[in-house]
Amino acid sequence: MHDNTVNKPGGRKLWVIPGGHIPLHTNGPEPEFTSRDTLSILNCCEQMVIIQITIFYAHREPAGPYFLTLAPKRACHTWFNDFIFPEALPLDTDYAAVVSADSPIIVQFSRQDTGSAANALAGSMAFYADE
Amino acid sequence: MHDNTVNKPGGRKLWVIPGGHIPLHTNGPEPEFTSRDTLSILNCCEQMVIIQITIFYAHREPAGPYFLTLAPKRACHTWFNDFIFPEALPLDTDYAAVVSADSPIIVQFSRQDTGSAANALAGSMAFYADE
Amino acid sequence: MHDNTVNKPGGRKLWVIPGGHIPLHTNGPEPEFTSRDTLSILNCCEQMVIIQITIFYAHREPAGPYFLTLAPKRACHTWFNDFIFPEALPLDTDYAAVVSADSPIIVQFSRQDTGSAANALAGSMAFYADE
Amino acid sequence: MHDNTVNKPGGRKLWVIPGGHIPLHTNGPEPEFTSRDTLSILNCCEQMVIIQITIFYAHREPAGPYFLTLAPKRACHTWFNDFIFPEALPLDTDYAAVVSADSPIIVQFSRQDTGSAANALAGSMAFYADE
Repeated sequence: MHDNTVNKPGGRKLWVIPGGHIPLHTNGPEPEFTSRDTLSILNCCEQMVIIQITIFYAHREPAGPYFLTLAPKRACHTWFNDFIFPEALPLDTDYAAVVSADSPIIVQFSRQDTGSAANALAGSMAFYADE
Repeated sequence: MHDNTVNKPGGRKLWVIPGGHIPLHTNGPEPEFTSRDTLSILNCCEQMVIIQITIFYAHREPAGPYFLTLAPKRACHTWFNDFIFPEALPLDTDYAAVVSADSPIIVQFSRQDTGSAANALAGSMAFYADE
Repeated sequence: MHDNTVNKPGGRKLWVIPGGHIPLHTNGPEPEFTSRDTLSILNCCEQMVIIQITIFYAHREPAGPYFLTLAPKRACHTWFNDFIFPEALPLDTDYAAVVSADSPIIVQFSRQDTGSAANALAGSMAFYADE
Repeated sequence: MHDNTVNKPGGRKLWVIPGGHIPLHTNGPEPEFTSRDTLSILNCCEQMVIIQITIFYAHREPAGPYFLTLAPKRACHTWFNDFIFPEALPLDTDYAAVVSADSPIIVQFSRQDTGSAANALAGSMAFYADE
């Protein structure tokens, strides 16, 4: 009854998150309540995907690329807080992220901010920007 | 004055939610304040729709498919917490979900996290991935 | 330097919000802290737009249509809580909404839930479902 | 291995945010906890972009345009609270925003509401409305 597109969504190779900002303060036990920006990616292809992330700032040159690899049929949730090489992302600083992959992926962005004692969440799909 | 597309939106057969993660802790009376990931689906077709959900993880093979059916002109809000067969989804674990239907549907994702005493919400449309 | 598409975005005539659910409880002074689902619409056309909203439920026939009119170059933020005719929307009940207009509009959905004493917000663009 | 679309996402020239509303109250130290609506923009083109923002209200004529410029390969996070010229945006008032640029940009919208003592966040991509 089902067509065989099951588990084979199309995906895109280029995604943009304009509204990045790692919150400065954290309340509660880490890592569960660590304030963070999270990049969630699904690779539903049959091959490993190599992902490059470039970070754009308001007042300086872009940083990166940061590299991730993701095995076939795997999902990863990566914290922008953990992007260390070539340089760590500063906290409490506005940024935008461009996520580029060599095979189609699907990307979602979310934020957890525990800086005001209570937890606050925000999330949205990223914008796919393939020409 | 209106054209007769009213109540007949197009929908898509394949949707992706990369950023799943059922929160570990709950505060407040259940089920109203249970921490959860929710899948909201509208079937505005004239026939029943059969929906298959596959769950992708970071470090193991995908799980599923999980099956849902949805009657014509009906909406359902299903908790990922309640996906039991073929196996329960673990709490506090990153996952991605691919939602595949045999007729067009519309899918939204949301999270309620009451783990820090206050309620936190996040929501976004899913990504439609029909080729 | 600018082309004259300024203020004339395209819009769509058919939008879907699968994840409706008016929260049951409210904390804090009303109306500022009233728990609610909000439908935000922009009419950037030159003529009045007539909007029909149909509400889909899990276990009963759809309700509506509910009618709104929106003057040219005006925005409205309407609470689903305030949809009274032909019948009020029940609180604490899952629903989906289909928003159909006779001219192109742009639609966003948001929720404010103050039921756990602290405020919680969620928001997303609606899904445009024009064939 | 990578094609050279890296860092060159397509973007759009026209974006719409229907659900604007700057929260009235703030709790906590400013500016970190100031309640606000934020417009996040990435210019990944090679040239400066000029951005016009028009604000639509429920019961009066549109206001603006408000002007922003954004250097090539830069991101900006601008608060609607800070739009002063030609006139300040009122707090606690529903509005919609149309963002028009002379080169392709990517736009995200978010809200921080600290009015109920705890922080609440909401975010979504804007709707791209290029014809």
